[in-house]
Amino acid sequence: QCNLIGWWENELGSKMHVSTVDSQGNFSGEYHTAVSSAQKPIKPSPLIGSQHLDEDGQCTFGFTVNWKFSDSTAVFVGQCFAGDSEDEVLQTSWLLREKVDSLPSDWKATR
Amino acid sequence: QCNLIGWWENELGSKMHVSTVDSQGNFSGEYHTAVSSAQKPIKPSPLIGSQHLDEDGQCTFGFTVNWKFSDSTAVFVGQCFAGDSEDEVLQTSWLLREKVDSLPSDWKATR
Amino acid sequence: QCNLIGWWENELGSKMHVSTVDSQGNFSGEYHTAVSSAQKPIKPSPLIGSQHLDEDGQCTFGFTVNWKFSDSTAVFVGQCFAGDSEDEVLQTSWLLREKVDSLPSDWKATR
Amino acid sequence: QCNLIGWWENELGSKMHVSTVDSQGNFSGEYHTAVSSAQKPIKPSPLIGSQHLDEDGQCTFGFTVNWKFSDSTAVFVGQCFAGDSEDEVLQTSWLLREKVDSLPSDWKATR
Repeated sequence: QCNLIGWWENELGSKMHVSTVDSQGNFSGEYHTAVSSAQKPIKPSPLIGSQHLDEDGQCTFGFTVNWKFSDSTAVFVGQCFAGDSEDEVLQTSWLLREKVDSLPSDWKATR
Repeated sequence: QCNLIGWWENELGSKMHVSTVDSQGNFSGEYHTAVSSAQKPIKPSPLIGSQHLDEDGQCTFGFTVNWKFSDSTAVFVGQCFAGDSEDEVLQTSWLLREKVDSLPSDWKATR
Repeated sequence: QCNLIGWWENELGSKMHVSTVDSQGNFSGEYHTAVSSAQKPIKPSPLIGSQHLDEDGQCTFGFTVNWKFSDSTAVFVGQCFAGDSEDEVLQTSWLLREKVDSLPSDWKATR
Repeated sequence: QCNLIGWWENELGSKMHVSTVDSQGNFSGEYHTAVSSAQKPIKPSPLIGSQHLDEDGQCTFGFTVNWKFSDSTAVFVGQCFAGDSEDEVLQTSWLLREKVDSLPSDWKATR
């Protein structure tokens, strides 16, 4: 079954640890990013999200990272895939919201 | 201060209710979408996310919606803006992940 | 029929002028952006793109803007909608690619 | 120098051929996609776009593909990177616009 608990690493070297998943599929953990567009030093940051509990092990999920070294927020959405050799792979897409001063700057806040 | 608790409605007629925000900025609630790309009837679906607790009332935030009528997941990321007349406006961007059968279909799973 | 020739303005105050559409649907014109993330003063910049030639006046189209005041490039993709009163509305989404120094910075280049 | 002329292949097996780049950086060619969300058989489709002509060989570029087997349009935006061994790599992001019936369906038209 699809279970996000444990450590995951992406191709940029960022790592995340999911520590708990409850019976609703809500989970929490910590994200250790390897890359940053902020000025301050990177710090591990809490993540919170939710996954489906499909029995085929190919569930979709999403989570939010509340960066502790900036006033930005990131969201990730993805799906778990079971590889040939029992390996699980997560495919995700993300959006990063940077804080902007005012509404006229809103157009450039998200990447 | 930026406080997401309450009801919000977007330009498509979708509504969300944020019921609680804890001292870390984690929040939960329910999303009532007005639009859907799924076959089944729409149902209110739980949301879980996190916001910054900046004192200027312009915090960034993100949340995940675990759809109860499909095996898809959506994430939203945005920022709160205080309008002239005390009104608060949320500006958000979103990604919707649909479940696909296998990795070769991954390219089209997110919109 | 869907015809992009003429002036268009978006909600940010940016304007574009499409001067020619050929028999294949290829078109060119000039984009006058009202917003910029670049340091240098804004200049009108050439656009080039392509549209479908559907007879229902609801064609999809896309175009590229080669910014003359930065080394960035933007792409827009959208669809024309005919309103009640003969008005045509363009709905578009865009991506802005900023030039980065090297591949490890690629993750943050697009917004 | 950054020169897009020639054949390029992505990780999904899609190929594109850029046949000409003019002195303004405008280029055209043909896109042979390996993947499709349309019903009809895939056909090679014309592309038209624009690149910067930076001398460092790391230019940004964008182009539009007018699909000949559907009424959709795709746009790609990216940057050329020169690898260690003279190899050039293109990093791109894309948006695919599918035609929808009316404005209320606009929210789901782009992936």
